[in-house]
Amino acid sequence: MTLADRWLLPDGIEEVLPPGAQQIEHLRRRLLDLMDGWGYDLVMPPVLEYLDALLTGTGKDLDLRTFKVTDQISGRMLGLSADTTPQVARIDAHSLAPQGIGRFCYCRTVFHTRARSLLASRTPTQIGAELFGEAGAEADVEMLGLMLSLLAASAVENVHLDIGNVGVYRAIAEQAGVTTVQQAELFDLLKLKCASDIDAWAEREIADSDSRAALQLLARLQGTLDNLEVGFGKLTALVPAAAGELEHIRVVASQILARFPAVPLYIDLTELRGYQYHTGLVFGAYVPGYGDAIAQGGRYDETGKAFGRARPARGFSADLRVLARLGNFVPERKPLVLAPTSDDAALWQQVNELRQQGMRVISCREQDTQQADYSLQTINGQWQLVSVQPVQD
Amino acid sequence: MTLADRWLLPDGIEEVLPPGAQQIEHLRRRLLDLMDGWGYDLVMPPVLEYLDALLTGTGKDLDLRTFKVTDQISGRMLGLSADTTPQVARIDAHSLAPQGIGRFCYCRTVFHTRARSLLASRTPTQIGAELFGEAGAEADVEMLGLMLSLLAASAVENVHLDIGNVGVYRAIAEQAGVTTVQQAELFDLLKLKCASDIDAWAEREIADSDSRAALQLLARLQGTLDNLEVGFGKLTALVPAAAGELEHIRVVASQILARFPAVPLYIDLTELRGYQYHTGLVFGAYVPGYGDAIAQGGRYDETGKAFGRARPARGFSADLRVLARLGNFVPERKPLVLAPTSDDAALWQQVNELRQQGMRVISCREQDTQQADYSLQTINGQWQLVSVQPVQD
Repeated sequence: MTLADRWLLPDGIEEVLPPGAQQIEHLRRRLLDLMDGWGYDLVMPPVLEYLDALLTGTGKDLDLRTFKVTDQISGRMLGLSADTTPQVARIDAHSLAPQGIGRFCYCRTVFHTRARSLLASRTPTQIGAELFGEAGAEADVEMLGLMLSLLAASAVENVHLDIGNVGVYRAIAEQAGVTTVQQAELFDLLKLKCASDIDAWAEREIADSDSRAALQLLARLQGTLDNLEVGFGKLTALVPAAAGELEHIRVVASQILARFPAVPLYIDLTELRGYQYHTGLVFGAYVPGYGDAIAQGGRYDETGKAFGRARPARGFSADLRVLARLGNFVPERKPLVLAPTSDDAALWQQVNELRQQGMRVISCREQDTQQADYSLQTINGQWQLVSVQPVQD
Repeated sequence: MTLADRWLLPDGIEEVLPPGAQQIEHLRRRLLDLMDGWGYDLVMPPVLEYLDALLTGTGKDLDLRTFKVTDQISGRMLGLSADTTPQVARIDAHSLAPQGIGRFCYCRTVFHTRARSLLASRTPTQIGAELFGEAGAEADVEMLGLMLSLLAASAVENVHLDIGNVGVYRAIAEQAGVTTVQQAELFDLLKLKCASDIDAWAEREIADSDSRAALQLLARLQGTLDNLEVGFGKLTALVPAAAGELEHIRVVASQILARFPAVPLYIDLTELRGYQYHTGLVFGAYVPGYGDAIAQGGRYDETGKAFGRARPARGFSADLRVLARLGNFVPERKPLVLAPTSDDAALWQQVNELRQQGMRVISCREQDTQQADYSLQTINGQWQLVSVQPVQD
C-alpha cells in the first residue's frame, strides 16, 4: 500500500472536518433539544448487539444490510445496529416498559453494508423519535408535526410531505384474496405507478368486481387531500374495511395542513415502502433536487411483539449529516482570542474567565497561525483584551 | 431463543436509558464546549475504515482489539475504530495538514473486541483532544491543563495525577544496550514495581556500571516532584542523554502544580504504559475506588509518519460514560407542562412558544401518566399555565 492509498476512505463512508463538524454538532443539539421540548426522552441503545436480538421483529432487508462480527467472549454472532427503531421498540417493550405513552428520541451512527441509495451514506448519523402506546390519529399528527419542526429547525427549505397508508392496501388485498405470488407481481406494478398496467393485471387476476375496481382506483389515488375526497368516498363504498384507515389519513392530513400551511402535502396510496414493517400511515419529506426522502417514518405496531409487548408504535428518522448539508443552519461563532504563553497566574485566571464567558482563547505559541479577533496584552500591569485589526492584502 | 434471552446484551456492552442518557448528552456538550473554548476544533473521523489505514502507525495491541468485517463493495477488510487518536493523526497529517499548531477534539463511540480492563466498556464513548506541531513542554502543560479542566467540569472529585516519561527509560536502555529479549524481561519486572528484583536483574544482565545504577535508580523514582529532585540529579549524572526528558518533567510538573494546587501530582518513571506508541511524557488521572485511569494520554510523535508527516503530537482521552458515572454533573431540569389535545390553533401557537422558552410541553392524551409541574388550561378564553400541586400520599 502506498502513502496515498492509506487515507482513502471506503465508498459511502465519510469523515467530517472543521468547521462542518461543529455545524453538525450544534444542529444535533438543537434537534435533540427540540425533541426534548416535545417530551421525548433521549435513549442510547447499544451500537453492537447479539444478531438475533437486533434482527428480531424486522425484515430480511435489515439482515442483508447488517455488518456481522463474532463475539470473542461468547462466541455468538454480533451485529452492528443498522436501524435504531427496533432497538427503541425493545427498550419500550422490555427495558423501560412504561405504563402510559412512551416517547423516545435518539441520535447516533448506524452502519449499513450497502447504502440505502446512491445518495446515502453507509454510516449515517440517524436522528429520530418514536412514540408508543397510542392508536389514535393524534399520535400521527404529533409525529408529523415533530418531524416538520425538526426540518424547520434545520433551516431546510422547500420541504414537501408525502403521506401513504399501507393499511388501505392491506384492506383491499384481504377482500380481494391476493395471494403471495400475486402480491409480489402487484408490488412491482405499484412501484412503477403505471395505472393502465395495474388495470390489466386486475382484470386478469382479481375475480371479485368490487375488489378489482378498488385496486384500479387505488392506483389513481395520488394527489392533494381536496382532490382525493371523491376517490376516498368511492373506495370506502367498494371496500368498507378500508374506511377507518382512509378516515385516519383525512384527519391527519387536515390537521397537518392547518398547522403547517406552507408545506405542500401530497397523498399517495400506492406508496408501500416498508410494507413488511409498517402497519398504517407512512410518510416522507422531500426537497427539490434531492432524490431521497430527507426524513421518513410511519407506523409499525408489531415490532415490540418479539419482546413480549406489541403496542401501537410510530416513528421517523433522518440522517443528521444530510440535514446539515441541505439546511442552512449556521452555529454561532465565538470570538477568537490569542493569549501569550506565560506562567503568570493572573493570565491563567483571565484566560479561564474569558473561556467561561464563551470566548475561544488559544494559548498561543510562535507556531500558531490563527487570525484572531482579540489578543490579550498587559496594559498598566493588567491583562486586557485588545482588538486585532484584520490584515489588509 | 426465548423471549427473556432476546434482550440480553453482550458482556461489556451497555444501553443508556432516561434520565442517564440526558446526563451524558449534556456532559458531552459541556466538555466539547470547554475544548472548543481552548481552541480545539471538533473532528468526526469515520467509525469504519480500511483496516490497513486504521492500524497504520500503531501497535499490535490495537489489531487484536479491532473488530473486522469484509467490505461488500471493495472486498477489502474494514475495521471498526478502536481508538480515535491514530485517525486524528491522519487528519492532521493528510486531510487538513495545517501549517501551524493543530488542535483537535472529538467524542464518539469506539469498539473493542475485548475490554481494556475488567471495569471498561467494549463500546466506550471516547472523548479527547490532540495537539500537533509543538515540541515544547508548554504543549504538555496545555494538554494536562485541558484534561484536568475537563475532569473538573465533569464534577469528578478527589482526582490525582500520575506522570511518567518513557523517554527517560529510552535514554537509559540505549546507553545500557538493552536487547529486545532483555527489554521484555525488564518490562515484566517494572510492571511489578519490585525494586529488589530489578536490582538483581540489572546486576546479572547489564555490564556498564553507570547504566546499571541508572536502571536501579529508575525503579525507585516514584513520588512527588519535591521528593525526586535529588534522584533526578543523580540520574542525569549517570545518563546525560536523559537530562532533557527529566527537565521536561520538572517544568511540566511545576507548572501544573501552580495551576491546579488542589490536585496531588505523583511522578512514576517506571510507568511505561503504551511504550510502543508513546515517545515522551505519559499521564493518567485517577480517583479513589476506581482501579483504572479515568483519563489518560501522552506524547506520540511517530503516528503521523505513516501518512507522510511525523510531527510532535500529544493527546488524552476518557470514556464520557465513566466521567458521567463518577462525576456529580447534573443537567438542568426543564419544567414539564401538560397540554390538552386539541386542534385549536391558539393552543398550538402557545405550546410552540413555551417550548421555545425552554419548557417541556407534552401534548397529553388519556394514556399519559407523567407528573407535571404545570398544565395548560383555558381561562377567560386564553390558554394559561396553571401550577399543578403534587399529589399527597
